[in-house]
This record gives sequence, C-alpha cells and structure tokens, in this order.
Amino acid sequence: MMGRTHGQHALPTTLGFKFAVWTREVSRSIQRLRDCRERLLVGKMSGAVGTQAGLGPKALKIQHLVMKKLGIEASDISTQINQRDRYAEFTCIIAIAASTVDNMASEIRELQRPEIGEAFEPFGRKQVGSSTMPHKRNPIICERICGLAKILRSLVSAALENIPTWHERDLTQSSCERFVIPEECILIDYILVLITRVMEGLEVDEERMLHNMELTQGRMMSEAVMLSLGNRGMGRQKAHELVRELAIKSHTEQRPFKIALLENYVVQKLLNKKEIEEILNPRNYLGTTLQQIEQVVKKTRNERRDRGLSD
Amino acid sequence: MMGRTHGQHALPTTLGFKFAVWTREVSRSIQRLRDCRERLLVGKMSGAVGTQAGLGPKALKIQHLVMKKLGIEASDISTQINQRDRYAEFTCIIAIAASTVDNMASEIRELQRPEIGEAFEPFGRKQVGSSTMPHKRNPIICERICGLAKILRSLVSAALENIPTWHERDLTQSSCERFVIPEECILIDYILVLITRVMEGLEVDEERMLHNMELTQGRMMSEAVMLSLGNRGMGRQKAHELVRELAIKSHTEQRPFKIALLENYVVQKLLNKKEIEEILNPRNYLGTTLQQIEQVVKKTRNERRDRGLSD
Amino acid sequence: MMGRTHGQHALPTTLGFKFAVWTREVSRSIQRLRDCRERLLVGKMSGAVGTQAGLGPKALKIQHLVMKKLGIEASDISTQINQRDRYAEFTCIIAIAASTVDNMASEIRELQRPEIGEAFEPFGRKQVGSSTMPHKRNPIICERICGLAKILRSLVSAALENIPTWHERDLTQSSCERFVIPEECILIDYILVLITRVMEGLEVDEERMLHNMELTQGRMMSEAVMLSLGNRGMGRQKAHELVRELAIKSHTEQRPFKIALLENYVVQKLLNKKEIEEILNPRNYLGTTLQQIEQVVKKTRNERRDRGLSD
Amino acid sequence: MMGRTHGQHALPTTLGFKFAVWTREVSRSIQRLRDCRERLLVGKMSGAVGTQAGLGPKALKIQHLVMKKLGIEASDISTQINQRDRYAEFTCIIAIAASTVDNMASEIRELQRPEIGEAFEPFGRKQVGSSTMPHKRNPIICERICGLAKILRSLVSAALENIPTWHERDLTQSSCERFVIPEECILIDYILVLITRVMEGLEVDEERMLHNMELTQGRMMSEAVMLSLGNRGMGRQKAHELVRELAIKSHTEQRPFKIALLENYVVQKLLNKKEIEEILNPRNYLGTTLQQIEQVVKKTRNERRDRGLSD
Repeated sequence: MMGRTHGQHALPTTLGFKFAVWTREVSRSIQRLRDCRERLLVGKMSGAVGTQAGLGPKALKIQHLVMKKLGIEASDISTQINQRDRYAEFTCIIAIAASTVDNMASEIRELQRPEIGEAFEPFGRKQVGSSTMPHKRNPIICERICGLAKILRSLVSAALENIPTWHERDLTQSSCERFVIPEECILIDYILVLITRVMEGLEVDEERMLHNMELTQGRMMSEAVMLSLGNRGMGRQKAHELVRELAIKSHTEQRPFKIALLENYVVQKLLNKKEIEEILNPRNYLGTTLQQIEQVVKKTRNERRDRGLSD
Repeated sequence: MMGRTHGQHALPTTLGFKFAVWTREVSRSIQRLRDCRERLLVGKMSGAVGTQAGLGPKALKIQHLVMKKLGIEASDISTQINQRDRYAEFTCIIAIAASTVDNMASEIRELQRPEIGEAFEPFGRKQVGSSTMPHKRNPIICERICGLAKILRSLVSAALENIPTWHERDLTQSSCERFVIPEECILIDYILVLITRVMEGLEVDEERMLHNMELTQGRMMSEAVMLSLGNRGMGRQKAHELVRELAIKSHTEQRPFKIALLENYVVQKLLNKKEIEEILNPRNYLGTTLQQIEQVVKKTRNERRDRGLSD
Repeated sequence: MMGRTHGQHALPTTLGFKFAVWTREVSRSIQRLRDCRERLLVGKMSGAVGTQAGLGPKALKIQHLVMKKLGIEASDISTQINQRDRYAEFTCIIAIAASTVDNMASEIRELQRPEIGEAFEPFGRKQVGSSTMPHKRNPIICERICGLAKILRSLVSAALENIPTWHERDLTQSSCERFVIPEECILIDYILVLITRVMEGLEVDEERMLHNMELTQGRMMSEAVMLSLGNRGMGRQKAHELVRELAIKSHTEQRPFKIALLENYVVQKLLNKKEIEEILNPRNYLGTTLQQIEQVVKKTRNERRDRGLSD
Repeated sequence: MMGRTHGQHALPTTLGFKFAVWTREVSRSIQRLRDCRERLLVGKMSGAVGTQAGLGPKALKIQHLVMKKLGIEASDISTQINQRDRYAEFTCIIAIAASTVDNMASEIRELQRPEIGEAFEPFGRKQVGSSTMPHKRNPIICERICGLAKILRSLVSAALENIPTWHERDLTQSSCERFVIPEECILIDYILVLITRVMEGLEVDEERMLHNMELTQGRMMSEAVMLSLGNRGMGRQKAHELVRELAIKSHTEQRPFKIALLENYVVQKLLNKKEIEEILNPRNYLGTTLQQIEQVVKKTRNERRDRGLSD
C-alpha cells in the first residue's frame, strides 16, 4: 500500500509494516507500566506524618507483613501519604497509551475516507450510516476513541499539579484523584476494548490499496529509478536530476512515468523495458519490510513469553 | 520539628526525614530517566516511510553500524520518524521531576514565612529584601523554581498531542518540538542548578523549630499519651475519650496539656509526673524515623554505587 | 463541493460556505479580544500591597493620570500586582484563536491529500516537495501552523496555574509569564502571518471538487430524492424506506443512483427523467447557502465598519 | 492586618481590602460569562452540513422561530454543529472562575495555619480535626476546593483540542464533551457552594492579626518613617539610607524599631516621640484602602442593579 508523509504519497509500504510499528509502540506502553510497578504498587502504614510513632518499635516489620498480605511492596519511605510523583507517573503512562491508541484510530479514520477507502472499522450489517444517507459508513468507534483520548491527555495536568504537597500531606490530592484515577482507569479500559474490536474486525480493501498507488502514475517510484540508474554507472547526482526532470514532465503532461522513462534516450541506453517495469513495481521496493516485521514479531513474542503469556 | 498535615500541626518529625522523603522522590526521577533510556535513546536510518528501500539489502546492518558510532541503539522499527510516544515520555518524566523540585521549593517557601521561620534559602549578605522594606527576606530562588515548574508541566500537553501522527510522518511534530524539547532541557537544568544552590546554602533555625512545637502547648502529643494510657491497662477506647476531653479542655482554657494531664485524677493513677514529661517530649515520639532515614541513605548510596558514582 | 461528516461524504456544500463559517469563527476571536480589553489593559500604581500608602492622599488621582498618559485604564483595585485572571483570560483567548487557525489549516491539509486534491496551499515554483520525490506537494505551511497551535494550547495550563497567588503577590507568576506571554504573542502573530499567506495563495481545483462528488454515484443526493417523493404525495416514511433501499441497491451493484431510480416502478410514477436529473444535481440542493454567506459578509462588514476599518 | 508579598511581611492592609480585590475578580468572571453569552447560547437547525438543504426555502425563518421558542439565539452560521470555539471559551471561563475560587481558598488555608491563625473556615461544633489529634482544625472545605479546581483547569486542554474538527463535523467532540461539559458544570457549582459556605461562616481573629503585625517589631513601618523624614526636609535618598540602617540594626539586635528610631540623633531632631508613635501605627498607613473599598462596593452594587439583582 501507499506510504504517506505530510498526507502525500511517499513510497510503498505495507499494512503489516504499519501494524509492526504499532506493535512496538504498544509494547513500549506495556514496558512503561511494568517499569513503574515498583514505584507505583506500594503501600504504607506510616502514621500521621510518616514516622510510624504510634505503631511501636516493630512498626517497619508490621508494615512489611501487612503489605505482603496485600500483595504489594512497602513504600521505602512516605509521609502520611505516598508521594504523588508515583501516581502522576501512572497518569502520564495512561495518557501516552491512550494517545497511541488515538494514533491507530486516527489512521483508520483517514484510511476509511471514501476517497482513500483502504481500511474500515467493522460495520454491523444492520448498522445505518445515517437515516437519510444510507451510503455513509462512519468510523464512529475510532472517532469515539479519539474523543476519549483527549480526556485522558487532559487529566495529566491535574495529576502533575498534585505533586507539590503541603508538608506531610494536604487534602487537595484526594479530592482531585477521586476523579482522575477512576476516570482514567475506566476510560483506558474502554478505549482498549474499542480498539481491539476495531482491529479484530478490520476490513481491508487490497485492490483499492493497489489502485491508490497508481494515483501518481508511477512517479512515487522515482527514487527506485534514480538508484537503478546510479547503479548502472550514471553518477548519482546526474541520475537525480534526470529522474526529477522526467517526474515533473510526467506530472505536467499527466502521462505515466513509465512512458516518460521509456521515451527518454539516456534511460533507454541503461535500462530496457522489462527492467523498467521491474523497477516500477512497488512490490520490488519494500526494502527490509519483511525482515523488520519478522524481527518485531519475534521480539514481541519473546517479551510475551517472558511475561508468561502464550503467543 | 513539627510535622504538618492540612497545614496544621500533626505529630513531630525531623528535617532529616523530610530530606529522606525527597531523596527517594528524586531517586525515582532518576530511575524513570534510566528506565526510559532504551525507549528514548534510539536512532534510525529508515528512509521516507521506514522500509529502508533506498538503502539496499544491508540496510539494517548499515543502520546498526551508524547508530553504534553515534553511541545509541537502533530503533527496532520506525517510519520516517521515531514514534512520538518516545519523546512524550521524556517530557512527562521531566515534568514530574520539575514538580518534585517544585514540591521541595514550596516547602522551603512555607517554612521561610516569618510566622514559621524554620528554614531559609541562602541570602547574600549584600542582598536586599526590598528597597523600602530591608527587613524582608524573600525566597526568590524557590519562587522562581515554582514559576518555571509550571512551564514544564504545561509542555506535557503539547508532547502528548504530538503522538497521533498522520501515516508515516507529518510535520506538526517537528515545528512543535523545536520549542518543547530545548525549552524543557534548559529549564530543568536551570531548576536543578537553583534547587542545588538552595539546598547547599539552606539555613535552618533549630530553636525556632522547637519553639514552634510549643504552639499547641503539648496537645500535639495527645496520641502518645493515649497510647501510654492504653499500655497501662486503660482500654484504648476509654483512653481515647479521656485524652480527647483533656486536649479540648487544655485548648479551651489555653493552658498546657501537661497541666491538664497532671490535674486529672484518672491519669494520676496510671502515670506519674516524670513519666508524663517523658511522654510529652517530642524527641521520644519519633518512631522509626532514624531507621527509615538510615535505610534511605543506604539504598540511595547503593544505587549511586551501581551507577558508578561516588558517595 | 462535497460536504463531509465523519470524514465521509454527506451533502453538497460550497467552499464559500466553509469560508463563511471560518469568517464568523475568526470574528468571535476578535470579539473575545475586544471584550477582554477592559479587563486586560489596565495598569496600577498601588504600592507594595495595593493600599497606595506611600503615595499620599492623592494616590488615586496620580494613578489615574499616569495610566491616562500610558493610554490604559487604571485597575479598579489591585494588590502589588494586577490579579492573574486578567492574563489567564488573554492566554485562553489566544489559544482559542490559534486552535481556530489550526482548524482551518487542518482542513487545507486534508483537502490537499492527493486522493482528494480540492485545495492547496501556495507552492513556490522552485519549491521541491522532496529531493527524491519531486511529485510531492507537502502542505508544510499548514503543518507548521498545526504544530505551533499545540504550543499555544499548552501554555494555558501555566497561565491558569498562575491565578492562585500567595497573599498580595508572589514571584511564581513573573518567572513563568516571562516565557508564556512573549511566546504566545510571537507565535500567534506568526501563525496569523502563515494562515494569511495560505489563504491569499490558496489554489482551488473546482473540477476535482465536482469529480469527487461523483464518488458515491449520486447516492449523496438520496435526501433530496426522498423529500421530492414526499412532496409528490408519497408519505415521508414510505419515501424514506424506498430511497434507502434504492441507495443500498445502487451501492451494492456499483451502478449510478440515477439508474436505480429510473428503473424503479414507483419512482417512475411520481418523477420523470428530467425531474430526477434536476433533483440529483447538487447545485440544486444547496439550501440557504447563498443567503447565509451574504448574511455573514454583511454582518462582518458592519463589524469592521464599527471598528473603523475599511472593507 | 499584615499584607504579605513573597510570603513575607510587607505593609499593613485590611481583610476588607482582600475581600474587595476578590469581589472584583469574581465580578470579572461574571462579566466573562455575560460577554460569552451571545457566542455560547445559540442553537441551529442546519441539516447535515449546514446548508439547511432539507428544510426548504423558509429554513432560516424556521430556525429563527424554533430558537426563539427555546429562548436562545440562532447561530449566525454553522455546519452540522456549532463550531467548538464557542464551548472551549466556556470551559476556559469556568476554569478561570475555579482558579479564582482556588485563590480565595488557598488564602484561607494559609491564614488558618496555627502559626498565622488570622482566619478560619467554619468548623462544626461536633467536627473532629482528627481522631487522635483533637487539637487540629483542618481547612478541609478549602482544601477540597483547591483539589477540584485542578480538575477544572485540566479540562481546558480537552476543550481546546476539540476546536479543530474534520470538515463539517466529526464525532470526536461529542464523546469528549459528554464528560467535559457536565463535569465542569457540576464541579463549578459545587465549588461555589463550598466557597459560599466558607465565606459565610468565616471566623476572623482580629487580635491575632494585630499580634502578628508585631512580629517584625515595627520594622514593617520603615517605609512610612522614611517618607516622614523625607517630608521633614531630609532628602529622600538620605532618609532611605538612614531608615534602612536603623531597620537592620533593630533586626540584628532584636529590639523594637521604635527604640532604634528614638535613640537616633538625626531622627530625634526631625520627629518627636509622639510623632514616631503615630507614624509607626499601622492604622495610619492604610493609604486609600477605604476609598478603594468604597469604590469597589459602589461599582459592584451598580453592576448588580444593572443585572436586576438586589443589593
């Protein structure tokens, strides 16, 4: 399929490559959650200011045993409360994760535009796009994801403001966190349910993907042509200028790039028709796409195995 | 010194305990930075859409060698750009670190109030509080820290908005990050320079700390009295009610809590004057303060050693 | 041109209508700035805490005269500083204005996608989309706008945090505002320069607009057909069901909606071929578009005249 | 009472002056709400993309009549939706209002510190500060206000992100606003209920206010002394140096400023004891405090009257 930068056609890529990029982005979110566990999952029995004064000489031991029972670690030190950098980190991580899901949902929304039409979130058979416009197929799940991600990003401000605390505790954190923490947990869960539904039911139009690549009449392959000409002995700088010229000519005359190449005397001397067709075939210009995807799959599988999860 | 919750006197603590809490909070910021390194410090040579198509069959190897030379890892997969969750995480971590420093600076600002007067940021001999009010000693370094921390928190919104990207890259990240990334690096550096200066030159008024503890005429020790009475056989619930009553009496009559205790018939039977004085001495009600501080020092020293730093 | 909701084709609209919507959105930003003037453009000579104690009995008069000279109003009351809600409002207004410009720039970026190709930001003749991909026409001005708008949104957090102040002033505002205020003024100015350049040099492809409307083979006009059938005596509910059925049929068979209508026995009885063609012509289904645009132009012109500006 | 800058004693002010400053800050919030009404309180019947195509030739009239019935204005132009700058403005205004209330609540929290003890939020007779520390009087209402204000500030990010919209509408606004708008309306209402309760039941300790002013032994009146010496013929620069010297002497020796003045030969020549006592009386150094308060009361009353409210 077409790879796009600035919303414009750039070079060919594959849908699998997009998924591989997302896979690692999601993996990084999981890593962040795992990295923050030892900072986040701690409890304390520390008394009014942290000194454990009312708990007797075995206070640290008591704290240790209680936390063990709760299945969490004892905080290494705390005041009346655990310091709020711990929870702010969690809110940041959730906001980053939500934005990654937003990124994926935004991609689907764009690909689902009727002018592009390459991928579609699942659409129930009985679902109606619009009562008066039954032709519509609105990416409403993805839109909902993007809308809720804005909330998850916004909660970070409150969580960061919670870090500065008056002395051994004040009450401005708890009144705030009573909203922030449940809201973010519920919303990230919901967003993950939604994106899973989207990805499991994703419809892909491969023909349209191929068709869209023809939009620039082969000019998106100009880099490949340039490199081939360079390999055939034409200096790279010269090849660059020639290809650029022919791409602009093809664009101005709205004729296939292939024709512009075939008609050119200099190109003719270095490449024959069959070679040009080979070069212009986007399937031949995917570089290390497959290798990279395989590496990603392997790395991610290993991580899952290390976490005791099945493939 | 007095430990405070809700801005009110709670139980005794020590300045060293406050520092120990901060030490671990700062350590967590260092841990976060270290944890994010493998996600952040990566580079890529991936071509226009990530497929490395123009780099030939040895593209992955070339990328690896170049990154080795740069002293960073190669990104496991990327499009034209490294995905922006990597940089958003960095901005979050910096904002958390800045808020921790804000927390410390806010504490000093409060302790430096003339009504409290327990700690003071350094003040040059020739420094003037105010041209017309030479008696003033303004905590301007700490105030500057708190002001700049607001900027560092605000940058997180922009960094999170940068995660959703159009396809294989768009240009809305770089125009934004050109501000966010240098600004946050410069400001966090400056904030750290300032807080270091504050902490190195911190002036502490120990007498004032002791004096301030007398503000509630010993009533802040009511928890200690209650526990002692409980230990002497009075039921805990009963002890609680009695102590509460005497604390309120002492408060209403504005007389020392010690007098209220000494005058009470029930207390007299269980505790003698010397014992009461022992119990009311805040130095005897610091719980595991010293143990906790020692643990913190040891843990932090070990971490520094593990990072190859001297004590 | 096609009007789009959820990124999908909805009903016809015009580019002029889009501009009219933006015109009012921009007008609202101007109104906000004008509304905040009396709250924002004030100065004060109020001494260390606001009481003007050092300025003698004529202090209010002195303040009045000095502010008159400066061309601003005297604050009705202030402490050492003007209260920070005044400046936070300004930052909010600028962030809203920037987001409106972001909205316009985002629209151009989408319309400039090669698959849509309806509008383009100006592109210098000598400008190169990409060194190896000369066919690219990247909307880099609009992308830059969207990137910088994120910064302007993020500054609001800091400006709002500046409102709570310690007593008669603290220093955490000025250290923060030294960044926020110049940065937002410079960036909004730059964004406005950029969007003006984009709009002045905007290239519009009318043919492509018409062409894109054919993408759903006339089905986007189903609402118009339904209403016409309703007007010819068929009950609205019945008309709705029939049109829906035919639109789905046209979509499934990938044949023009017009054919589906012409072939239908019930439709035939109520509408002849010429009438159907009239109904399916998007130019005949623009409702009050022109009236609304005229109203907007008139209203905006009047506002400009009231502000002493020429048309 | 003491006026404070940087948390330090500056010059005398009055509690009424603080209230007058807040009164105008609250008035500005009311003004902002009133100013935004014509932008915010609008409705529309505009069809799928804003053209009113399905509503017939009298669409604008129909829209007008329906909105009249709803008691709001018709939007001057809209797409399928009202543009989101309208609602973002509302969220900003609410966040500013919440931060103003936060400012007031923060002031009470500081004044309620036992070391300051000048003002207290109401405290139910049966309320207990803490089960083991009955002497505590925690400003929990004010703390709750400050905590919730952080949420109201954070929602602004989401509201601003809602302004950029895909074409004639997308669905990412409504999923987001379903949280933001009810949450902010409920929370601002609650915050206003709380601050009203605080202000109606505010307890003020006038004696403590006077007592606290003695903390700097009269040195906070150095500005007044300097101006008086200046008025008696000593050059201002000279007076400044002398007073500064004596203030530092008084501070170093921890003796009353009055003694330092009385003992000084130069001061003796220009001011007698009675005059010095007059000058050092903070009640004589309140400048235009009363005039300013009266102006504020009058202005605010007039505004209320203009809005049809009783005094």
